[in-house]
Amino acid sequence: MIRYHNAKVLTMTKGIETEYCEVWTDGDKIVYIGQPTAQELQAVRFDSDYDLKGNILMPSFKNAHTHSAMTFLRSYADDMPLQDWLFKQVFPMEAKLNGERVYWLTKLAIMEYLSSGCTAAFDMYFELDSYVKACTESGFRSVLCGAVSGGKENAKVLEERYLKYNGLHPLISFMLGFHAEYTAEKELMEAIGRLAEKYKAPVAMHNSETAKEVRECVEKYGLTPTALFDSMGIFSYGGAGFHCVHMSDEDIEIFKKRSVYAVHCPGSNVKLASGIAPVVKMMNRGINVALGTDGPASNNCLDMFREMFLMTGLQKILLGDASACPAEKVIEAATVGGARAMGLEDCDVLAVGKQADMVVIDINRPNMQPLNNIGKNIVFSGSKENVKMTVCAGRVLYKDGEFRIGESPEVVYARANDIITEMKSE
Amino acid sequence: MIRYHNAKVLTMTKGIETEYCEVWTDGDKIVYIGQPTAQELQAVRFDSDYDLKGNILMPSFKNAHTHSAMTFLRSYADDMPLQDWLFKQVFPMEAKLNGERVYWLTKLAIMEYLSSGCTAAFDMYFELDSYVKACTESGFRSVLCGAVSGGKENAKVLEERYLKYNGLHPLISFMLGFHAEYTAEKELMEAIGRLAEKYKAPVAMHNSETAKEVRECVEKYGLTPTALFDSMGIFSYGGAGFHCVHMSDEDIEIFKKRSVYAVHCPGSNVKLASGIAPVVKMMNRGINVALGTDGPASNNCLDMFREMFLMTGLQKILLGDASACPAEKVIEAATVGGARAMGLEDCDVLAVGKQADMVVIDINRPNMQPLNNIGKNIVFSGSKENVKMTVCAGRVLYKDGEFRIGESPEVVYARANDIITEMKSE
Repeated sequence: MIRYHNAKVLTMTKGIETEYCEVWTDGDKIVYIGQPTAQELQAVRFDSDYDLKGNILMPSFKNAHTHSAMTFLRSYADDMPLQDWLFKQVFPMEAKLNGERVYWLTKLAIMEYLSSGCTAAFDMYFELDSYVKACTESGFRSVLCGAVSGGKENAKVLEERYLKYNGLHPLISFMLGFHAEYTAEKELMEAIGRLAEKYKAPVAMHNSETAKEVRECVEKYGLTPTALFDSMGIFSYGGAGFHCVHMSDEDIEIFKKRSVYAVHCPGSNVKLASGIAPVVKMMNRGINVALGTDGPASNNCLDMFREMFLMTGLQKILLGDASACPAEKVIEAATVGGARAMGLEDCDVLAVGKQADMVVIDINRPNMQPLNNIGKNIVFSGSKENVKMTVCAGRVLYKDGEFRIGESPEVVYARANDIITEMKSE
Repeated sequence: MIRYHNAKVLTMTKGIETEYCEVWTDGDKIVYIGQPTAQELQAVRFDSDYDLKGNILMPSFKNAHTHSAMTFLRSYADDMPLQDWLFKQVFPMEAKLNGERVYWLTKLAIMEYLSSGCTAAFDMYFELDSYVKACTESGFRSVLCGAVSGGKENAKVLEERYLKYNGLHPLISFMLGFHAEYTAEKELMEAIGRLAEKYKAPVAMHNSETAKEVRECVEKYGLTPTALFDSMGIFSYGGAGFHCVHMSDEDIEIFKKRSVYAVHCPGSNVKLASGIAPVVKMMNRGINVALGTDGPASNNCLDMFREMFLMTGLQKILLGDASACPAEKVIEAATVGGARAMGLEDCDVLAVGKQADMVVIDINRPNMQPLNNIGKNIVFSGSKENVKMTVCAGRVLYKDGEFRIGESPEVVYARANDIITEMKSE
């Protein structure tokens, strides 16, 4: 058992309210939250004992949309129009990836997630075995999102993966999905709708990220992407749409009716000039919102603190209302919302029996002082400098700037640089 | 002399290009930049020798608009409409400030500046002697911006301060200024115009931050704030406008003609829903742009990395163009632009004879890898976790998370919390 004590614990079970108490974990689970008596304490033998020195212990952040291994394209092609970026820079380089490269590039991403207090990624990419190896070796949780496109991949491949990766490892699960309407054949999407029905399973995909995507979908099918997916039964058991920037009122109603999560990616949306998602409008309609960084090629960093500030800041600008999208809603989306969008109901809050996926926020830094309001401090002032410890499935993977993921940082950095150098010359 | 070696040096004298070399400082100045021979090295006795391990050494960031001592209001009143925030929360609490409180609250702000690689603040607030004491004791550079309003303060007070604080201490200077049009009498502004003429000096103030401010000024004077100031001779010798969110084409022409700096504060502008400043439009017209955080009550953090990402991100959204406001322009604004807007021409770039105001950016963190492009990495991925060392006027004030500013962090945090607690109960 591991003991975390002398903490302000923010369980997220009763809003943004902290309680001075302690948390014990056993294996991957939380087994106790409270203020034990001296007698109760004496009865337990702890393997480790962390004095958190009055800092905040809270559920870790969940990154509900990313393409982890795209770390190789960080700062490779920025400040350029979306189409040039995608077709001239991203796609030609991605064609040079292989399993070994994805492994190392994922390791680099996992380090960055941990340094921002994040313990789970909803990842859509290639070379899944290598990705899974990087995650499980590191002790990092991930939900793989089916990424089949037309052509060489099809619904049969998707089904095989769904069956293969669910149950493979406690840290890994797989959600049915596909890249996006604009990269999928009609037949593929219809087949995925049938898979959703067969397994009574949710489906996730990029949805209404750009105005162009929506316009061209309407031209082709007479329906928005959201309405098209719904008409094919894809949302019959819920799911998630990544980005959801250009949503009609009807789209929002479909998300509501089908309990589909909107995964907001504000960093990517500003960097690629995609627009500002109607997050407050969606939340007001009762739609669940999660938060994601998108991949490091389009953000470029994997920092949930940046996303949290942007989520509230952009809504304030969009609506011309400084009270829009308060900090409490943002923390909820970044923790509880993300976990639930990914089907990780046992990782959403701190409670006995839940997975021990936690972060310690260092309040003894100038940006967190004075302590007028912890929730506002986290969203409006928080940064990676405040991540003191990141715990995934009961294991401390990051502490005081040091990583405990098997590989040394120097090796990961060297491999990442070698890989991009090799790819440029190939 | 102090030696900084094994560094990628970004002098900012030739764009965003780094050179592997070393920098030597003596007292507050840079005395050497280059790659010395073994013989040259042997001829010098260094007091300190820093191996920067391949990290980036560059000009420190300059925070060109802030109200440092407002740290006490961090997270005190967020997610509320601007008018409620200002009149119900900010003004009543500010009335309870005194010199001793301003001293401690400023110390806290300086710590946060240093942790974000910033060595100078263009500060507008009260209790200047206490503010100056906090800065000079810490070794932190500051330009005081005159903040007289109507009523008890007048142009005579401003002139006295101008004469008193300029020349008082090498780290301190004073620029003529006033809060804003909407808090100043016509006579005061006219008198400040005459002071500008008398001293052939630039003048700085809040300018066109909100649509309401501009609308009401036009109703009152028939002129925008910018045109009004210009008509009074306030801009005859240049100056700076803080925020500049709602600028007409004519306003921009005046800024251009008078060489007035636009100080962009994107974090504050989104948090208070003020709008997005036309930064690219202004830069395209040749207006110099600097970057500021605004005070911690309206941001809430004092983090130049956040401001840098927001500067480019918001322009991309405003213009619907992912290539707008490239990273290089942003770094320029955050370093060179800020220094020049503040009249700190000797702190703008790294060159022999310039002030040694520098920051070491740690690239051995996951968010900076791989090293495709250092400039893009700094703006799009950089964060306070990458600030390894902050040097002001040749003194290392921050290194590896530790502060060297006289007071211990614990004392500063305790005082800040005591102060806000006392103020709440008064």
